[in-house]
Amino acid sequence: MADKQTNWRSEIAQGDAELHSMVCIADDLPEARPPRLLGVKDIIDVAGLPTECGSLICEGQIPPATAPCVTALRGAGATVLGKTVTTEYATTRPGPTRNPLNPAHSPGGSSSGSAAGVAAGYFDWALGTQTGGSVIRPAAFCGIVGFLPSAGVIPRAGVRVMSPTLDRVGIFARSVAEISEMLAAYAVAPTTSPSDRPLRLALLPQAYLDQCDAATQSLIDGAVTALRATGAVVDALEDTAPFDEMMAAQMTVSGYEIPRALEWERKTHPDLLSDELRDYCEASAGISHVDYAAALETADRFRLWGTPILQQYDAFMGPAAAGLAPEGLGWTGDPFVNRIWSLSKFPAVCLPGAAVANGLKASVQFNTATGTDARLCALAAQLEALVAGLAPD
Amino acid sequence: MADKQTNWRSEIAQGDAELHSMVCIADDLPEARPPRLLGVKDIIDVAGLPTECGSLICEGQIPPATAPCVTALRGAGATVLGKTVTTEYATTRPGPTRNPLNPAHSPGGSSSGSAAGVAAGYFDWALGTQTGGSVIRPAAFCGIVGFLPSAGVIPRAGVRVMSPTLDRVGIFARSVAEISEMLAAYAVAPTTSPSDRPLRLALLPQAYLDQCDAATQSLIDGAVTALRATGAVVDALEDTAPFDEMMAAQMTVSGYEIPRALEWERKTHPDLLSDELRDYCEASAGISHVDYAAALETADRFRLWGTPILQQYDAFMGPAAAGLAPEGLGWTGDPFVNRIWSLSKFPAVCLPGAAVANGLKASVQFNTATGTDARLCALAAQLEALVAGLAPD
Repeated sequence: MADKQTNWRSEIAQGDAELHSMVCIADDLPEARPPRLLGVKDIIDVAGLPTECGSLICEGQIPPATAPCVTALRGAGATVLGKTVTTEYATTRPGPTRNPLNPAHSPGGSSSGSAAGVAAGYFDWALGTQTGGSVIRPAAFCGIVGFLPSAGVIPRAGVRVMSPTLDRVGIFARSVAEISEMLAAYAVAPTTSPSDRPLRLALLPQAYLDQCDAATQSLIDGAVTALRATGAVVDALEDTAPFDEMMAAQMTVSGYEIPRALEWERKTHPDLLSDELRDYCEASAGISHVDYAAALETADRFRLWGTPILQQYDAFMGPAAAGLAPEGLGWTGDPFVNRIWSLSKFPAVCLPGAAVANGLKASVQFNTATGTDARLCALAAQLEALVAGLAPD
Repeated sequence: MADKQTNWRSEIAQGDAELHSMVCIADDLPEARPPRLLGVKDIIDVAGLPTECGSLICEGQIPPATAPCVTALRGAGATVLGKTVTTEYATTRPGPTRNPLNPAHSPGGSSSGSAAGVAAGYFDWALGTQTGGSVIRPAAFCGIVGFLPSAGVIPRAGVRVMSPTLDRVGIFARSVAEISEMLAAYAVAPTTSPSDRPLRLALLPQAYLDQCDAATQSLIDGAVTALRATGAVVDALEDTAPFDEMMAAQMTVSGYEIPRALEWERKTHPDLLSDELRDYCEASAGISHVDYAAALETADRFRLWGTPILQQYDAFMGPAAAGLAPEGLGWTGDPFVNRIWSLSKFPAVCLPGAAVANGLKASVQFNTATGTDARLCALAAQLEALVAGLAPD
């Protein structure tokens, strides 16, 4: 009997000695592999397991309570397998995690281990967080489904704060059906039948598509063609200004909030912070209260501009990342358009296409208005197979 | 020498045996009373002292790190005296704190101990938090200056999350000069000279003033008369709709977010939560994702409506609480118009009038636009003596 547990656990541990998706594995796991294993990003508290935030500053710190985002999934049948690798304080410096689609490439970040472990099949569900692009980008790079619910849907208590305005908890799984099951744990009731009328999608302006690599452009082009073949309307948006403003505003908001969130660490343990994080904090010191207030107002305006568009269209559509996962483990990639959606507080879903020659996958992103997570999930279920079937040119 | 420390510390401890403003006092205090003693609301982490959140669930829990809102004040010369009484998880159930102006009355909440301890002179500066009215209301009831900076100015890492949208850290002191010193620790540079031109103030609609008790109405009327006598323009706003919508929206947002933030406690320790908090969570279960999204949109619209008004006027003006501190310790009072300002993310300041017959004080509130904290502080400095001199009819 003991062998049974040893088998499934040691199989994961053995594979993870190469992949490095996990920081620690729980001790109290059942003999037989439970049906819903959960990986929890290591900036989210689980009572009894350390929360180390990808930093030596937090080494061995065991929280007394469990974050409610974990409690809700346990209530839906999840068993916590362990904590997953995060970049340093969910910012830039990568952990050791490799990409299961191609181990020479980055899994993306900052929720690196959550995305990689789901893609590798070590666990079925995972929790991550996004401040810039930290859920949708690693989901895209690892070729799995990532879903970032509207702000507020998944509670943030027990999650290390980096940017109070931007931080959101998101979820990872290998299929939209599993995402739907996870969302139900957060009281997002699945929409049973997507509407029969043709879909209407608002495509991000061409200027953003032009910034993507060939594989991503090819996937988006293929998806647009396939969607139109089903009778869907796909209209390209022309005005780049609302998106450009949001890209800049997200950088202002995170540059203002992140250094403030790290003030204790910067004062008491500067030697244990990476040079790049220290430099980022110092470089951001020039962002004024007025710059920050203007950036928040940009977000207010964007939401009030975007919400009516999302009454005419079923969703915004665009890339989930600027390109395939970068080679090497030194950089987890550019948040790119995810900055826009992080600041918007709108929900986001990432759907992967078919693999390209080197095993990696490009991905498409869809976004709807705040509070319409069930509709976004239903849309993703409707389009999952279409996108997954799109092989690059 | 030892007596010196014993003296000032034991004097506070002795007084506090009646007032109950503090949960614990630090061990490592200097012999001579330091010039800037700080009280920290007991939902804010200070490494080495327990964070108990006004709940037995958190008894004895000592955090490994200090919240950056505390670190910043230490950098400005503060010495942490100890942790101050909060209502249960900064919600409704009161702690044992009395009002130093009249011990038969509530000090307000949820930052009860922070306001009471400053008013009693036990410490000079204090930190609290506001989700509904938990900084401005206790400041008003205890007759001190409360300042709730724009969202983002004071970092929220290390502060127990109740409502990610609404939670804000605020500060208490006995004078605007001290508030200005505290704000400087958060990079809010004092505005050296208020403008010479006559002030222009936008008074909350009469319907809100009509809901105040006689002492508060008298103070507001007196302040309007005194301001006009200095040449100031005070225009009463007529449209109540934007404010009414915000009152309702704040209740929707807090009703949606607070039960989610407490999911672990509700699942694992329901017996240690008060009946009223459990009931509140259950009663809020009917708030849908769509209701919540609409409430957030109300806030977006309010900000975009209010910000241009604050280019025509120096500030909004209105009551800080609906009335004087309620008698008895069973209820910390109604958040009243503070709900509006909590959801707006605009900064707020509370200035007390002169004492009424029973020792209590009514207070006036001023609010400016996000990012203009320095201007609001300068305005408060300009009006502090005027308001403090207003005896009730």
